[in-house]
Amino acid sequence: MFNQKTLEDRIKFYFKNPDLCQQAFVHRSYVNEAGDNLESNERLEFLGDAVLELVVTDFLFKKYPNMAEGELTPIRSALVRGKNLASVASRLNLGVHLFLSKGEDVSGGRQKEYILANATEALIGAIYVDQGYAKAQEFINSYILPETETILEQGSHLDAKSSFQEKSQELENTTPEYRLESEDGPDHSKIFTMGLYLNDQLVAKGSGSSKQKAEQEAAYNGLQIKGW
Amino acid sequence: MFNQKTLEDRIKFYFKNPDLCQQAFVHRSYVNEAGDNLESNERLEFLGDAVLELVVTDFLFKKYPNMAEGELTPIRSALVRGKNLASVASRLNLGVHLFLSKGEDVSGGRQKEYILANATEALIGAIYVDQGYAKAQEFINSYILPETETILEQGSHLDAKSSFQEKSQELENTTPEYRLESEDGPDHSKIFTMGLYLNDQLVAKGSGSSKQKAEQEAAYNGLQIKGW
Repeated sequence: MFNQKTLEDRIKFYFKNPDLCQQAFVHRSYVNEAGDNLESNERLEFLGDAVLELVVTDFLFKKYPNMAEGELTPIRSALVRGKNLASVASRLNLGVHLFLSKGEDVSGGRQKEYILANATEALIGAIYVDQGYAKAQEFINSYILPETETILEQGSHLDAKSSFQEKSQELENTTPEYRLESEDGPDHSKIFTMGLYLNDQLVAKGSGSSKQKAEQEAAYNGLQIKGW
Repeated sequence: MFNQKTLEDRIKFYFKNPDLCQQAFVHRSYVNEAGDNLESNERLEFLGDAVLELVVTDFLFKKYPNMAEGELTPIRSALVRGKNLASVASRLNLGVHLFLSKGEDVSGGRQKEYILANATEALIGAIYVDQGYAKAQEFINSYILPETETILEQGSHLDAKSSFQEKSQELENTTPEYRLESEDGPDHSKIFTMGLYLNDQLVAKGSGSSKQKAEQEAAYNGLQIKGW
């Protein structure tokens, strides 16, 4: 049940425009059921996703001045991926505030990873529209960026290959294959680009200073592309 | 040949830190040839890409308050895709300023679409680091956002299916196929999600208020995923 006060106290952000706050929690299924007067959270999610991307990119760019783009990309992916955003939503108890259709609610929509992740992005979008970039950045600083250390310590940004293989075997009954697409540069500073293939079909590419890093990046990109 | 003054007069932006300006034009091939002391433009490109994404998203969100996310996404894709950024680079004559390896230069690197597009993003990243978001936004307002009207008039954001088919036939010798993945909502406001397949392999998905719109979005996403 949506309760703005409970939510605001929880996230420590107070909206000027209450409609925006509410809209962040309106799932498409609810609009479909309730009719055309309400707007779903998808536009706010579209915006919040881009705000999140810049805040995270800017943070990583400054925090790790010696990391190449190929090393920063998987860390960014790990921070903004659905799994991480859904866990932020769970910690902030966002699920209870969602407006869902009866069917979606009964089928466990309040716990679904992509619905929760989208609500987190929509909430970021709503904060950005309500009070600007700096406030959205504060929210992301508080609830999303602290994960960076954990991700690096656990190497979970580098575990994309295992995740991709698990998913492709489970969902598509096939095993991924990595092929060298190109090699650039002199021996002491080579950059490898690896292609990730399923059934001889290129799914994604990744680059890095070793084949292993390039494969991890390709797997990360593959996870995003496949929506896994 | 890199000439900061010529460049600055052209783009009407004057850097406080000349190193940043120069770095935006250092292609990886040059670093590889010249040794390890120089840094390529890839980190700035990583940052500039995210700045561009937010500026464009924010602009479209405000300019088209009645468009759904599914309609905004292909317009955004058309604005930030390599082809468009390379044409911005050409108009601003960025290619002449690039630092390239001899081999890359001889093979026409100054005219290559992805090198030019990356330089545009790196330049946006450099402006952002040098003087902040608002200045980067001014640059994007001046040189990239004016394309929006043209894209909408020509419907070039909706021509993704043709482009994708052309590329897949030329490069992979196969024809794309679209399949209905899901249908949500009541009859009067259905949302279709279509999958784009090559050789029975899911490449990308897209959603929209008609199957045609969903296919176009899937094709757009597919073009980005494939790097076409």
